[in-house]
Amino acid sequence: MSSLATLNEQAAICADEMEFRSAALRIGVSEVGGARLLDCGATMPGGLQAGVLLARLCLSDRAEVSMQPGGLDGIPGPLVQVVSDDPIRACLASQYAGWQVQVGKYFAMGSGPMRAAANIEKLFSEIPGHETPPVAVGALETRKVPTEEVISYLVEKLPKSVRALTLAFAPASSIAGSVQVVARSLETALHKLHTLHFPLSEIISGYGVAPLPPIANEELKAIGWTNDAILYAGRVVLWVRADDDQLAELGPKVPSSGSSDYGAPFQEIFKRAGDFYKIDPMLFSPAEIVFHNLTSGRTHRFGQLAPDIYRKSIGE
Amino acid sequence: MSSLATLNEQAAICADEMEFRSAALRIGVSEVGGARLLDCGATMPGGLQAGVLLARLCLSDRAEVSMQPGGLDGIPGPLVQVVSDDPIRACLASQYAGWQVQVGKYFAMGSGPMRAAANIEKLFSEIPGHETPPVAVGALETRKVPTEEVISYLVEKLPKSVRALTLAFAPASSIAGSVQVVARSLETALHKLHTLHFPLSEIISGYGVAPLPPIANEELKAIGWTNDAILYAGRVVLWVRADDDQLAELGPKVPSSGSSDYGAPFQEIFKRAGDFYKIDPMLFSPAEIVFHNLTSGRTHRFGQLAPDIYRKSIGE
Amino acid sequence: MSSLATLNEQAAICADEMEFRSAALRIGVSEVGGARLLDCGATMPGGLQAGVLLARLCLSDRAEVSMQPGGLDGIPGPLVQVVSDDPIRACLASQYAGWQVQVGKYFAMGSGPMRAAANIEKLFSEIPGHETPPVAVGALETRKVPTEEVISYLVEKLPKSVRALTLAFAPASSIAGSVQVVARSLETALHKLHTLHFPLSEIISGYGVAPLPPIANEELKAIGWTNDAILYAGRVVLWVRADDDQLAELGPKVPSSGSSDYGAPFQEIFKRAGDFYKIDPMLFSPAEIVFHNLTSGRTHRFGQLAPDIYRKSIGE
Repeated sequence: MSSLATLNEQAAICADEMEFRSAALRIGVSEVGGARLLDCGATMPGGLQAGVLLARLCLSDRAEVSMQPGGLDGIPGPLVQVVSDDPIRACLASQYAGWQVQVGKYFAMGSGPMRAAANIEKLFSEIPGHETPPVAVGALETRKVPTEEVISYLVEKLPKSVRALTLAFAPASSIAGSVQVVARSLETALHKLHTLHFPLSEIISGYGVAPLPPIANEELKAIGWTNDAILYAGRVVLWVRADDDQLAELGPKVPSSGSSDYGAPFQEIFKRAGDFYKIDPMLFSPAEIVFHNLTSGRTHRFGQLAPDIYRKSIGE
Repeated sequence: MSSLATLNEQAAICADEMEFRSAALRIGVSEVGGARLLDCGATMPGGLQAGVLLARLCLSDRAEVSMQPGGLDGIPGPLVQVVSDDPIRACLASQYAGWQVQVGKYFAMGSGPMRAAANIEKLFSEIPGHETPPVAVGALETRKVPTEEVISYLVEKLPKSVRALTLAFAPASSIAGSVQVVARSLETALHKLHTLHFPLSEIISGYGVAPLPPIANEELKAIGWTNDAILYAGRVVLWVRADDDQLAELGPKVPSSGSSDYGAPFQEIFKRAGDFYKIDPMLFSPAEIVFHNLTSGRTHRFGQLAPDIYRKSIGE
Repeated sequence: MSSLATLNEQAAICADEMEFRSAALRIGVSEVGGARLLDCGATMPGGLQAGVLLARLCLSDRAEVSMQPGGLDGIPGPLVQVVSDDPIRACLASQYAGWQVQVGKYFAMGSGPMRAAANIEKLFSEIPGHETPPVAVGALETRKVPTEEVISYLVEKLPKSVRALTLAFAPASSIAGSVQVVARSLETALHKLHTLHFPLSEIISGYGVAPLPPIANEELKAIGWTNDAILYAGRVVLWVRADDDQLAELGPKVPSSGSSDYGAPFQEIFKRAGDFYKIDPMLFSPAEIVFHNLTSGRTHRFGQLAPDIYRKSIGE
């Protein structure tokens, strides 16, 4: 059998492709503090294809990402589709934005497989994926170009095996940034399942789809819209090995409707809560989730699309 | 003009890609009796991407296969789409499971272009595609790993030109196995048309789409669900050269609704018949078929999706 | 940052791929008057995949083109989807059929990036894209094989930098020809916006989708059906920088419903007008257009699909 490259090496191949095609992708390539920076939408226009590649980079290329027509169920398209046969490594060890990168006044949510190399999140004691790779690749959701201090901070957290760091970045309020956020439909379902103590090793394959919302002109609105694309218009299918009773009990908690905060656009929920960390963390999951239980052959479907709330959110 | 490789050589390129990416695809690679075996879902987990590659291998890569969002017409997704500009060679000379491989107690339906090399089916006197290739590639729908005896039997049936045999295998009750079966929407339409004596040389291009059902935990159920995905939720479009009168007369017989067995989930039909070979062979075709007649410019549409029967079949 | 190849060089890479795969694509490759000819559907069958490649060639490969399932909103599929992050160069400098190639009795609409090299259209004083490339690539919508006189005429119009010319051709009444026409959904929206004096530099990315109609057996019918696929069943999404007031005012004029000729199948409009040039040029645009305004974050949606008119047009 062939052996797998590390997550970071696979993401680095995406990063190399992004650099090679940077002019067509309208990505900026620069060097700061010895790291390669890929500006996918902060000071550069980026675009839809930059967003698909940024999503693939975040997923360590362990998932396929594509744009698809929409219009279905009153949800305007295009849609962003994700398919993975290595969903835990792709989504949780790589794509999940679990690293709050705070250096002085600089703050950005960090994602991508550099997290699997840094190994500073509690999550990595619970999931596979920790690695000591020759290179590291991460993504920051921000409009601020990472500074030398930010690079130094990150490099310090990475193992000594890492000889080169690449950072791709874009705010949610950019085309590529919005694409990469709504490519997180599958990831939100997996993270919620982990929180609910579903055994991740029993999740075999995953599929997710969510609409690309309008691109907001301010970050909070962008975060609201991209979240709502998943919360109210995202669909995930998982192929798992489980007891049907376990799925029947767990299931209703998995879609966003399982949260007490469900029902309003994210920005309203945020205003009501007053603080991001007062929002019910169980909110963050797709509108609909389907489990295909490989053990029993049974299908369990929970939640449903809420196109009205999604359209209300994006002002349509 | 460029010349075409043999069907088997093209399938071998798919097989090589599957071996190269075997770890990520969760495919097992081994050697038995001098043949290369690719286990896509028998004792290995395989997955969605393994299924797409297995489908391409079965089609000798003369068709594009992709996963698409669904949800349409009450038919849950994802969908598996097939596009071919060489539909007879791709589907009938390669993909059709026309070789009943029986060696002692070992039995599996054999498909893929090794059939075009073995030339032991009557079908090859009626369709193009028979070839004497340097390598051979086949697929077996089974959970049983092919034995040395099975390999010997197959090799004996192959021409002496064949220096290497690759066998990919997976049961319908596996993720990859289900994907490759529902990638047969187009093939079932073509086979039915051949049975109805429609001249195959006048079928220019083909398009098919069918939903991926849940993965059953037993083979008979899997066969039922994957068949129902095509029979009650599959759509095929063909670009043909024909007389409109011929199409108007032939057309109603082509979709599954043209069969007397139409109307119930496949498993019910099977139980009623008591024997696979007592089922009306005319049942096996998509729910809907569209002919675009290139000669007249007219469109003929027959049959229609039956989402209720499909959902009943898969227990939703 | 990487630098971009010329539009013509990128299209030449598509042409090379088409030549390399010509047997499988059923494309004819020949040489006339020193030019390479790619017959995608005139005297050769071509097909769906030839059509996708022909569309990519016309777009100088600055857009992704794919086939997608349809069935939505009563519009039969498959659909042809276009995604571009360089929409003005892809669609207006390359794909737009702005060159009426008339040589003696030979007439064909010319498109592709050879137009950006010839620079004989007024349009190129208003849009970016004019270039002096080392090679030239064009497409002609015709069933007539280009003659030596046609080649001589074209070569004469091209700059001296051009050392090699490739011409791909197919009539709308061929499979590949129909695919490449309905891949113009995005282009029609951009051309209309240019006519309405919307600043093209503020159009950042574009997305379009339209159904592939039946393939007509005569050219006028084919032109009617492929136009109707866009006029009555095409959807375009644009990411732009604009004033919301400007979009609110301009918007209703952009979809096909903004034209006084809107409402009947194209062939009826054509018969009524008696002359192609008497048809309101404002008719040629998609049924629905969505503007995502990056400046304000607001979405503006105009027009709507008219599946009844589309189905009436194609006789379904």
